Amino acid sequence: MRELTVDLGERSYPIYIGEGLLQEAPSFFEKHGISKKSPLLIISDDKVAPHYLEPLANALSAAGFQPSTAIVSSGESSKSLAVLEDLVTHALKAGLDRKSAIVALGGGVVGDLAGFVAASYMRGVKFIQIPTTILAHDSSVGGKVAVNHPLAKNIIGAFHQPEMVLYDLNTLQTLPPRDVRAGLSEVVKHGFIWDDAFVQWCDENSERLLALDPEALGYALYKGCSVKAAVVSKDERENDLRAILNLGHTIGHALEAVAGYGELLHGEAISIGMIGSAKLGLRYGAPEDVYTTTKRVLAKCGLPVKLPEHFDVDAIMEAMMHDKKFSESTMIFVVPTAIGEVEIKKDVPASWVREIVEELKQEAG
Amino acid sequence: MRELTVDLGERSYPIYIGEGLLQEAPSFFEKHGISKKSPLLIISDDKVAPHYLEPLANALSAAGFQPSTAIVSSGESSKSLAVLEDLVTHALKAGLDRKSAIVALGGGVVGDLAGFVAASYMRGVKFIQIPTTILAHDSSVGGKVAVNHPLAKNIIGAFHQPEMVLYDLNTLQTLPPRDVRAGLSEVVKHGFIWDDAFVQWCDENSERLLALDPEALGYALYKGCSVKAAVVSKDERENDLRAILNLGHTIGHALEAVAGYGELLHGEAISIGMIGSAKLGLRYGAPEDVYTTTKRVLAKCGLPVKLPEHFDVDAIMEAMMHDKKFSESTMIFVVPTAIGEVEIKKDVPASWVREIVEELKQEAG
Ligand SMILES: NC(=O)c1ccc[n+]([C@@H]2O[C@H](COP(=O)([O-])OP(=O)(O)OC[C@H]3O[C@@H](n4cnc5c(N)ncnc54)[C@H](O)[C@@H]3O)[C@@H](O)[C@H]2O)c1
Ligand SMILES: NC(=O)c1ccc[n+]([C@@H]2O[C@H](COP(=O)([O-])OP(=O)(O)OC[C@H]3O[C@@H](n4cnc5c(N)ncnc54)[C@H](O)[C@@H]3O)[C@@H](O)[C@H]2O)c1
Ligand SMILES: [Zn+2]
Ligand SMILES: [Zn+2]
Repeated sequence: MRELTVDLGERSYPIYIGEGLLQEAPSFFEKHGISKKSPLLIISDDKVAPHYLEPLANALSAAGFQPSTAIVSSGESSKSLAVLEDLVTHALKAGLDRKSAIVALGGGVVGDLAGFVAASYMRGVKFIQIPTTILAHDSSVGGKVAVNHPLAKNIIGAFHQPEMVLYDLNTLQTLPPRDVRAGLSEVVKHGFIWDDAFVQWCDENSERLLALDPEALGYALYKGCSVKAAVVSKDERENDLRAILNLGHTIGHALEAVAGYGELLHGEAISIGMIGSAKLGLRYGAPEDVYTTTKRVLAKCGLPVKLPEHFDVDAIMEAMMHDKKFSESTMIFVVPTAIGEVEIKKDVPASWVREIVEELKQEAG
Repeated sequence: MRELTVDLGERSYPIYIGEGLLQEAPSFFEKHGISKKSPLLIISDDKVAPHYLEPLANALSAAGFQPSTAIVSSGESSKSLAVLEDLVTHALKAGLDRKSAIVALGGGVVGDLAGFVAASYMRGVKFIQIPTTILAHDSSVGGKVAVNHPLAKNIIGAFHQPEMVLYDLNTLQTLPPRDVRAGLSEVVKHGFIWDDAFVQWCDENSERLLALDPEALGYALYKGCSVKAAVVSKDERENDLRAILNLGHTIGHALEAVAGYGELLHGEAISIGMIGSAKLGLRYGAPEDVYTTTKRVLAKCGLPVKLPEHFDVDAIMEAMMHDKKFSESTMIFVVPTAIGEVEIKKDVPASWVREIVEELKQEAG
């Protein structure tokens, strides 16, 4: 088992990564002082629950905890105030009080949703994350929790740090392959913003990752979480440093906004976005291998590196302008300067960005 | 103008109390660094807005701020997730960003609602309170914000401290007399838990308060806020000390739960509850004048001190037991031991409480 600490003063918490942690959950709960007198609420979704909810709830019951459970529909649409209200109904009916804890068993959707329930129920109760996707390594660090509004994603939320994160690598075995690849996109991103040795490791171990080799997965998630933890420890509330986590996200978000429903997963959009950022890096004089390595590693992880022909460049530019309220002619971008190093460029010519988005359609991919 | 500071370390904030502060809002906003580049959202209700919204918005616009406005229905039912979602729509359409502020112009309902919008919009933006009721002196200190759930009041919320509180005494002139009296109930409560000299002052100045004399009102709100600020400064997140603020509330909440809709305002229920607590005090050996003074001062403020005959004692007992999950035979109560002093008694016999609730119907009132 690997362990790391997200260092946030009195809100610090550990992330445990290993095989079989679901079965060992009761001893972790005991170690972290989770109450047996107050009921717990485990929140999961209808794709994760059939595999893992009963084993977890049974293990906790057997150890004297009082788990109750709630299952939401799989997918982004569960991150809504309506579902939040339902979950509060569950919590009230199960008798959760100020000393209760809310447990998220699922991917980033369940984590964000359950985390906001924990942040707001009785103005804040304890929160425990049991992530079941690779992408959720990202959401398990930093304490950002939220639901969506019909007009904007993640716009209603809080910062609410968990008591601990229990990452059971065995749960990843049932993850659909496309979600495996999309999750790796953020893992690789954490390498590119911070750690060239880890980029090289990803370059050499992509096949083991795609095959869900537990030892490789455990290491990659440990490294990914460590990078994010290092960044947020220095900048809990999203000021300057934290912005580097957005590598690939300015173009990526615009692609998600413009794509048809379900066409691009977040990690896929970010992958194409990172190629764009690497190309921008070249214009600022970064060595050629920043770009070639970015492209090679993402491609090895089975991620898209080329913008599909039918995407409309005007629409993408407009989505970026709207999203970030850039000025007419310049934009802000996270740009790689070397492998494992990025800089924030505050006056990137919008004309460059347009050219690069067009070039992304021409990528060999 | 009076000024006090709610002392909460880096979340400390000032409360300004005086006449005509609404017109002076722009200079206070400037002093506290509220952005003129980012839009503001002023939230009010449909009884307050006709009097005060336009003057406030116009003053802010004239000074170069960018206020937008949203008006909710007056009354407790606006404290809902549905209304929160509507307000977020307003905020998004008005273009509020991370540097924007949300302004509550109204009573405790608008304060709690707008405060939770501010706490959760983009995971937290600045919040400014402009209270227009006497009761809101209570909600303007302590940072508790929340909306209701169909099954429970104030159950979804956050702790979110305002940047400042601007209490314009002139706005209180239009407050309906029944709300004036109900607000005085919590003012008087703050005297009884902390400050015997202030109790005496209330005893001598109740007529001026009921007549909305600005000098008397300003002093009373200053004292009420000061007591609450002293308590929450020592105990921001509701542990032991903060419990003393619940004087009169255990019985009071039960009365609200049992009463027909609109029959008792919160302050009225608390008034009867405080009489009950004073009677409990006598059983624990407090001097007789704790009870006689409590009763005299509340009666002078035009508040009910007698439980109406038709209330069902069994139902009240059940509501208390349910609300607080007391054990079968003992209850926890805030009990006055002298004027301006209370103690928390952890094993009050439930039989005493029942007897006292019955006696409350016999009070001369
Ligand atoms: N809070 C943050 O800092 C942060 C960071 C990144 C992403 N996010 C959020 O995370 C969400 C995306 O996360 P995600 O990709 O994990 O999405 P997800 O939770 O929707 O999971 C992806 C899919 O896999 C299924 N699934 C999950 N685990 C499974 C398992 N072990 N076996 C079988 N199926 C499984 C889910 O039901 C879903 O259909 C987005 O809402 C995004 O906004 C948040
Ligand atoms: N957050 C806290 O710490 C805290 C503490 C106490 C109470 N509260 C909350 O406060 C709420 C009660 O507050 P309230 O009594 O101020 O209720 P309120 O906001 O509903 O105001 C009472 C009535 O007076 C009207 N009104 C307000 N100001 C007016 C004015 N100047 N002129 C004319 N009409 C005016 C309102 O429209 C309403 O009809 C409850 O929801 C309660 O939960 C919160
Ligand atoms: Zn991302
Ligand atoms: Zn009260």
